[in-house]
Amino acid sequence: MKFIKAPKKFYFHYPFPVTVVVSKSGGKVNMMSAVWHTQLSFDPPLYGVLISKKRYTYNMIEKAKQFTLNFLDYEFLETVAFVGSTSGREYDKAHTFDIPLQDGRIVDVPIMSEAYAVYECELFDEKEYGDHTLFVGKIVGVHYNEKLYTGEKFVPVVEEIHPVLYIGDEKFLTTDPTTEKKYGKEEVKRFLNEWGKL
Amino acid sequence: MKFIKAPKKFYFHYPFPVTVVVSKSGGKVNMMSAVWHTQLSFDPPLYGVLISKKRYTYNMIEKAKQFTLNFLDYEFLETVAFVGSTSGREYDKAHTFDIPLQDGRIVDVPIMSEAYAVYECELFDEKEYGDHTLFVGKIVGVHYNEKLYTGEKFVPVVEEIHPVLYIGDEKFLTTDPTTEKKYGKEEVKRFLNEWGKL
Repeated sequence: MKFIKAPKKFYFHYPFPVTVVVSKSGGKVNMMSAVWHTQLSFDPPLYGVLISKKRYTYNMIEKAKQFTLNFLDYEFLETVAFVGSTSGREYDKAHTFDIPLQDGRIVDVPIMSEAYAVYECELFDEKEYGDHTLFVGKIVGVHYNEKLYTGEKFVPVVEEIHPVLYIGDEKFLTTDPTTEKKYGKEEVKRFLNEWGKL
Repeated sequence: MKFIKAPKKFYFHYPFPVTVVVSKSGGKVNMMSAVWHTQLSFDPPLYGVLISKKRYTYNMIEKAKQFTLNFLDYEFLETVAFVGSTSGREYDKAHTFDIPLQDGRIVDVPIMSEAYAVYECELFDEKEYGDHTLFVGKIVGVHYNEKLYTGEKFVPVVEEIHPVLYIGDEKFLTTDPTTEKKYGKEEVKRFLNEWGKL
């Protein structure tokens, strides 16, 4: 193992899933890909996404206080890359790239018709961390393709969902469904038992 | 697409990569798996991880103000599942599961010898979001296996790194290196050019 003091740009924790942030303000709609995002809370349902002040989306969310988070299958990598490599200052992205949109149900922001899951978010909080701002969305509605999830917790069916994962340096990949394994409390107990540690 | 108001538990955005949070306080060392985490900033280098107040790790970090984030290959899924399915209140996990540790270089918290990358973090900020707390770590040092990264940005080599991804419901999977694709500014320009939109 090598050791370095923190470098300026680093991708050691990648790959990471991509979400497409859709915003709407002043009659304009914009989309950007984001790789820095995470769930924050179950109750209330909160989800955070980091956006730089340089981004067109930053001002859109500042004004509209709403956004949607769209999760697209790897077959739509082109869409994810298009909206991630261009700025809303230069392009009306939905028009330029023929990206199908539909109205949100709760928020006045479109959702992407190609997505397999969408979170409709109302801005709950925001906080600056270094060179990015954490926008905290309260999830007020969820759209999902019901064929892709199972059980009352809506767990993804890995044979059906191929998320877009970002590696860094404009490269992407997706998951390998054949590697799926269950490994939980039951399996751990069995091992502890076998080892005489339970 | 189905629509629901936000459910109590939801995994629509999964799979998500797992990191193992190591903490040390009062002579005790603990490890837990976390699925809610994200980079927050390049400059300064900040990384956030969400931890519930119920977790043993919560109090450890509150006291020590330091932690390490450890990224393990899928071949060590067992370790990730062990530390994710047990509590430090019941088990001295490193001892029980024979998990090899070594000293951090900057922080007084161990790092996991099995990890392919580790961030040493000093607590920079913390904030409560609903039922979890966002611990913001300033990355003061990075350990990494130099065979697994390339270029000056340290981009992961996908044939070599198989991250542990969590699906929900105690299930995991990893990536498919054969699906790697570059799709960036150059490719987008080419398409715009072909379409006569540039």
